[in-house]
Amino acid sequence: MKEAASSLEERMKIDLNSDMGEGFGPYRLCNDEAMMKIVSSANIACGFHGGDPDTMGRMVRLARLNGIGIGAHPGLPDRLGFGRREIPFPADELRQQMLYQLGALTAIARAERVAVSHISFHAAMGNMVNRDAVLADLMMDAIATVDANLVVFVTSGSEIQKAAKRARLKTLALFLADRAYDADGKLVARGLPGAVIKDEASVRARVRQFLLDGTVQTIDRTVIAMPARSILVHSDTPGALELAGIVRGEIEATGATLAPAAELAE
Amino acid sequence: MKEAASSLEERMKIDLNSDMGEGFGPYRLCNDEAMMKIVSSANIACGFHGGDPDTMGRMVRLARLNGIGIGAHPGLPDRLGFGRREIPFPADELRQQMLYQLGALTAIARAERVAVSHISFHAAMGNMVNRDAVLADLMMDAIATVDANLVVFVTSGSEIQKAAKRARLKTLALFLADRAYDADGKLVARGLPGAVIKDEASVRARVRQFLLDGTVQTIDRTVIAMPARSILVHSDTPGALELAGIVRGEIEATGATLAPAAELAE
Amino acid sequence: MKEAASSLEERMKIDLNSDMGEGFGPYRLCNDEAMMKIVSSANIACGFHGGDPDTMGRMVRLARLNGIGIGAHPGLPDRLGFGRREIPFPADELRQQMLYQLGALTAIARAERVAVSHISFHAAMGNMVNRDAVLADLMMDAIATVDANLVVFVTSGSEIQKAAKRARLKTLALFLADRAYDADGKLVARGLPGAVIKDEASVRARVRQFLLDGTVQTIDRTVIAMPARSILVHSDTPGALELAGIVRGEIEATGATLAPAAELAE
Amino acid sequence: MKEAASSLEERMKIDLNSDMGEGFGPYRLCNDEAMMKIVSSANIACGFHGGDPDTMGRMVRLARLNGIGIGAHPGLPDRLGFGRREIPFPADELRQQMLYQLGALTAIARAERVAVSHISFHAAMGNMVNRDAVLADLMMDAIATVDANLVVFVTSGSEIQKAAKRARLKTLALFLADRAYDADGKLVARGLPGAVIKDEASVRARVRQFLLDGTVQTIDRTVIAMPARSILVHSDTPGALELAGIVRGEIEATGATLAPAAELAE
Repeated sequence: MKEAASSLEERMKIDLNSDMGEGFGPYRLCNDEAMMKIVSSANIACGFHGGDPDTMGRMVRLARLNGIGIGAHPGLPDRLGFGRREIPFPADELRQQMLYQLGALTAIARAERVAVSHISFHAAMGNMVNRDAVLADLMMDAIATVDANLVVFVTSGSEIQKAAKRARLKTLALFLADRAYDADGKLVARGLPGAVIKDEASVRARVRQFLLDGTVQTIDRTVIAMPARSILVHSDTPGALELAGIVRGEIEATGATLAPAAELAE
Repeated sequence: MKEAASSLEERMKIDLNSDMGEGFGPYRLCNDEAMMKIVSSANIACGFHGGDPDTMGRMVRLARLNGIGIGAHPGLPDRLGFGRREIPFPADELRQQMLYQLGALTAIARAERVAVSHISFHAAMGNMVNRDAVLADLMMDAIATVDANLVVFVTSGSEIQKAAKRARLKTLALFLADRAYDADGKLVARGLPGAVIKDEASVRARVRQFLLDGTVQTIDRTVIAMPARSILVHSDTPGALELAGIVRGEIEATGATLAPAAELAE
Repeated sequence: MKEAASSLEERMKIDLNSDMGEGFGPYRLCNDEAMMKIVSSANIACGFHGGDPDTMGRMVRLARLNGIGIGAHPGLPDRLGFGRREIPFPADELRQQMLYQLGALTAIARAERVAVSHISFHAAMGNMVNRDAVLADLMMDAIATVDANLVVFVTSGSEIQKAAKRARLKTLALFLADRAYDADGKLVARGLPGAVIKDEASVRARVRQFLLDGTVQTIDRTVIAMPARSILVHSDTPGALELAGIVRGEIEATGATLAPAAELAE
Repeated sequence: MKEAASSLEERMKIDLNSDMGEGFGPYRLCNDEAMMKIVSSANIACGFHGGDPDTMGRMVRLARLNGIGIGAHPGLPDRLGFGRREIPFPADELRQQMLYQLGALTAIARAERVAVSHISFHAAMGNMVNRDAVLADLMMDAIATVDANLVVFVTSGSEIQKAAKRARLKTLALFLADRAYDADGKLVARGLPGAVIKDEASVRARVRQFLLDGTVQTIDRTVIAMPARSILVHSDTPGALELAGIVRGEIEATGATLAPAAELAE
């Protein structure tokens, strides 16, 4: 009885996060100011695939003012390709690139008297780490050495999740409300039909099911467990703000409350 | 009596430092491996005017292996101009750029289980800060917030020195053995005749006079006090290694010993 | 009599141009596809302050499909600052940067079987050339050597205009419908009050007066001649498309027709 | 009889080329000034994997002063990796990148009143094109549209060679004196034992055999035809200048004379 109650209470807290500050110089990908008012955690681009020191400073201030969690969002050094192309870096070079970006945001945050609480890998960097256990260990060990309290955002079942646990780092599993999953709990690749769910009613239904039952219906209509505590909304798609608002509305409609990553990580 | 003895003993310790890791990708400006064996402090380029995460990682390892002090050497984001051109950044953007670089090196060093002990500004960034008290305060306050134990390398009498003291940061004053000074203790600008001292015997004599008397002979043949505890050797000039070797030879010939910046800062 | 008639007829043709392709990788500053349908000449960013080879290729194709004039829009190599910051490059280096960008667009256009017809300097590069007669001669001589038929976009009375004439290059003078002029025919600096005219009715009136009388009312309410044959609409301001549509509407309402730069240059 | 004589005479002319201007800002990879006095054709880096507009201008002037052939040496936009890493660009984007670089050098050369005579792909860009017939056709058609007289440097039997012929472009086949070939006439990959020939006597012998017999001894000691008319010496290896001097000495010792690419292409 007690367990169920506590589980219910815990379920009532959920993180909503988005990638922020992915603009650069005069360029913007998203209305970061508005998005910061909706989410509970901001994954801030660190100047490689997007972002620059000035933009990072603005993002940190916005996150502080809105009282939300601050995370590093490191990517490959490839602004032209927005960090989406895999570039064959040696493992140790990738590790230094990640450390460089994490450290850069840490100092900018500290000067603003706030702390970086989590890390979430961007696109190709994430994909490269997620399928290579050795690289994942290398990265997680480096993170743990720099700050053992950092929370790592993960996809359930990924190499990053496993390596983070081996490095005794806390993790937070993500649920993507507007993306289809297969029966193995993996995301259906963006190019495939049905991979991206744009219909508002469907997104609402998925968020509700996830929040109330902890499950998701897969692309082939089976129902699987979705053991996530955080919902990710991509900020660089058209209608991102609206989507974030819809998700937040559903969260509140189910009686759940938002909490930043650091409170929920395990 | 006692004071003089202690002062003599303290004078016997001196830092010898150089800018390192200013290469990039396939490019090298200096034989960093060899220079690391000569100096007691390394100012490591942080990826803006020179350097990249991989090079920074190598530099930190070399510094650790040689047991020498590790410093951040931030510059303007201008690889093409090697950070020597003044670009009119707003004060707060300059500050974020400095923080970004300092933090990046800090994380890379921490993953190697060593700490960044000092900071030394590069070229145009240094010049811009050195003549603007407001900007200098902004920068020093940011450094103090990030790490109150960092030692700031300064030119004696500069705005950076004054602002560092206001921010209660420790400083270490530099002496440039191969550069002429004027009667005000300022460096003669590079372009002017006699500004750079290339003659080996003269460099030796200057180092000796500095170490034994704490003075330097100016370009107009007067003698002024040179209250420095660290000698800077530029690594990007031809013959830099030889110059560093000469300076170190003179230091040892006078019975002084090398000590990294953190031990000597006041 | 005949002269007046011919002058009237000539006046009936006007160029409308805008800076295009100033996006980069995933970033966009403007709906270039829509803007291409409104203007008669496109000044295409060449990869330094904005743009990249892929974007340039798309812009050239769009310009070809819309049958409009193609111009190079070179800027300083400063994507972070969008080419708006003056960086102290030596004159010859600036010249090589301009040539590099002009040549790059020329080859991309030639592969698409169209030609570059004009050149229009961006922001800080333009400002630096416009106030330095020696630099202006250096730049115009280089352009004339590369392609003696290129039309140079100028501000009336500028050093670029004078140097272009000395180099026997054709020029086309610009009128900015949404910017205030002073009594000397110079643009009122962006920062000053009243410099940017946002009111639609005022913009319409100014375009009409310019087209019908060849004059403009200055910020201090005098009327001066505006000997321009082309109207520039900035594409990176909010409402740029609407502004371009308004200007085009006025052009057509006065019975004038659009013609690309190459037809109108003198 | 006459054919043999003419063939002998033709064989007496050979091109010696090297990649030049691969430095960047303050960085140098090679003593380009000295190398320009040894070779007959310079492949000039175009600002993507190495080089910048200012360096390109200096290279073009040096080539003009030394009376040697000027070629474009385009690479991937990857200065950090020196254009050696394959980055998955779509075919059309690669094509625009090549055109951009070729055009940039063309304008810089034209302003110096010389012409670009050839093109030689760098590292990863070359490898990507060399194994993809469709991409090779796309690239060669683009080159032919821009300048039908350009000579394309090729490896004998490569896709670039075949596509260049289909596009009716002239080609010049390269021989690498310090690299081992296999029985199929392909270069032994750099990592494998024996791939790079460092012994001076061996290099001399290989150049002599190539010049006198038109053959080369493969890594497994068979002798194959080497139908090349140009010898490539890499400029970014230690001892590059010495190697170039040795090759040139052998060329002259066999009574052959140097001729730039444009004279020898077929």
